[in-house]
Amino acid sequence: MLQNLINSLPEWTKASGEADDVAISSRIRLARNLKGIPFPNKANDQQLTKVVETIENAVSRQSDLMIPIKIENLSANQRLIMVEKHLCSPQFIEKPHYRMLVINKEQTISLMVNEEDHLRIQTISPGFNLENALNQANHVDDFLEETLDYSFDETCGFLTSCPTNVGTGIRASVMLHLPGLAMVDQIKQVLSALTQLGINIRGLYGEGTESLGNIYQISNQVTLGHSEEELANNLTSVCRQVIEQERSVRKALMKDSRLQLEDRLCRSYGLLTQARLMNTQEALKLLSDVKLGIDLGIIPEAARVNVKELLFLIRTSILQHIYGKEMNQFERDYHRAMTIREKLASV
Amino acid sequence: MLQNLINSLPEWTKASGEADDVAISSRIRLARNLKGIPFPNKANDQQLTKVVETIENAVSRQSDLMIPIKIENLSANQRLIMVEKHLCSPQFIEKPHYRMLVINKEQTISLMVNEEDHLRIQTISPGFNLENALNQANHVDDFLEETLDYSFDETCGFLTSCPTNVGTGIRASVMLHLPGLAMVDQIKQVLSALTQLGINIRGLYGEGTESLGNIYQISNQVTLGHSEEELANNLTSVCRQVIEQERSVRKALMKDSRLQLEDRLCRSYGLLTQARLMNTQEALKLLSDVKLGIDLGIIPEAARVNVKELLFLIRTSILQHIYGKEMNQFERDYHRAMTIREKLASV
Repeated sequence: MLQNLINSLPEWTKASGEADDVAISSRIRLARNLKGIPFPNKANDQQLTKVVETIENAVSRQSDLMIPIKIENLSANQRLIMVEKHLCSPQFIEKPHYRMLVINKEQTISLMVNEEDHLRIQTISPGFNLENALNQANHVDDFLEETLDYSFDETCGFLTSCPTNVGTGIRASVMLHLPGLAMVDQIKQVLSALTQLGINIRGLYGEGTESLGNIYQISNQVTLGHSEEELANNLTSVCRQVIEQERSVRKALMKDSRLQLEDRLCRSYGLLTQARLMNTQEALKLLSDVKLGIDLGIIPEAARVNVKELLFLIRTSILQHIYGKEMNQFERDYHRAMTIREKLASV
Repeated sequence: MLQNLINSLPEWTKASGEADDVAISSRIRLARNLKGIPFPNKANDQQLTKVVETIENAVSRQSDLMIPIKIENLSANQRLIMVEKHLCSPQFIEKPHYRMLVINKEQTISLMVNEEDHLRIQTISPGFNLENALNQANHVDDFLEETLDYSFDETCGFLTSCPTNVGTGIRASVMLHLPGLAMVDQIKQVLSALTQLGINIRGLYGEGTESLGNIYQISNQVTLGHSEEELANNLTSVCRQVIEQERSVRKALMKDSRLQLEDRLCRSYGLLTQARLMNTQEALKLLSDVKLGIDLGIIPEAARVNVKELLFLIRTSILQHIYGKEMNQFERDYHRAMTIREKLASV
């Protein structure tokens, strides 16, 4: 079961969704803590063990759907796979002890146990669909609440380790692919305007990570004083605007400099189909171009599924897993280029 | 007949020849002048006309083989085609009056009438084969001498407009493709050593032109005091050394950094198959890489003929001829990229 989970990509990476010319995925994360036990950074070993056991019990009622995984039991590379499939945060695997990840078969739901909070529920939907992700998260939350006793304050709402999460404990985020705005150098301007609206912008793997391949995580900053629905709706309307801006830039590029655009995107495709060595950064940049080319009808639609998969397959941990060995950078670059060529040759 | 000549590429561009992993073509040029008529730069209109008529008469005995073309009768683009197919020098078409070009059907022999000298006989053979080119040139020379009276001095030999050509009037040159030496930064060193041996290095279109696509014309400088055969043999032995140096660099690259080399050459192939806009310089650079890839067995042999043709088809004049119109740079870049894609797609 664990092997199956590790071998396959999350369903949302392959499925299509609303506005997926720009939106890659929509994610909801709820922060929850158990009553009467200190937050993980203050808890001792027994208390952390207690948290793991309590949550393991709670999910065991649906053991056919939810698979608990002790991080300690994973190899270093398997841990990295979890991060690179966005099933947990990079911070989560840094200290593996007393930490557990619970994942559903489709890898659209994951629970991080004993990260910053006792419990973080995360759901991911393909494309632009926070509503669906929120419904799923609420469903899991309700199910767990049947047996778990959450730390909750009548005035403040859910109590969380970090004050920015207090209240609903919700963080909604949408992963957007913004190559058009990047191409016309408007990306910084747009993103800094969002920051002033209380919106957070992050790179591919969340807080403190770099934006690669023109992919940005747009998320809400304030969780106190609003309902889950309000927060999700607010982010939805902000993202809708960004999506429209990206689309209008793309339209203008197609109108004013179509050939130059085609040239750039097709060249990227040419490099991907032929290179023998490629690092992650270049691969993401070129795949970003090719995804844009598909979205604009410049590159055949048939390539879409493979390009979406490649956005994950090229990552270090997954490559090492596929080829069954630890690799140095040169070997990774070699196998990455090979994986890309094979995947695109089958289009 | 003229249309056929213009529509087709010289035979040597398609044929294979000795050492054609490095040597593209071997060329012999003989400078001759008619007795009793001043050199072209000193001659008046009647005298220039006389030269044209005399030579036209001489070749008319083989009118089925040799086609005389008055430069005045060619369009600007047709003139450029003659230069870009290496049938005459760039200087030759600058002043079209009283100038005639005589070409055989295979476009391996051409006579320039009233360039720097009254007559320049040029023969080109594919690959590394100065002997064959010299035999052809001598054959044409003998044939013409049956009816022409050359300006010849018992002590000095053939008299020519420029003193560097006095004597045999021969210039032998070999076009070499030296991407390996360029890649390891040895090209300047090798070429400057040749200069000290009395060897001339020029770019793609002869004197004063730039080297593009790592293609160099290597030719002899001294013509006085040696026989035609001595001069050709001397250049042959120099070129043989350069060819061996290039081959040994290629071998070392294949041994020490094969993957990096494959990566570079295949990326160039990828760009050629996908770009939508491409200027001549980039096209020559990438085609140079691809030719090297074919020579090293990295890129399929099947592409060889098309790549060799493309080295010519991408040139401005030929592109304009194929598409039947004068084009600005953007249009040329567009049609150049299209021509390349179509030609490579048929491989």
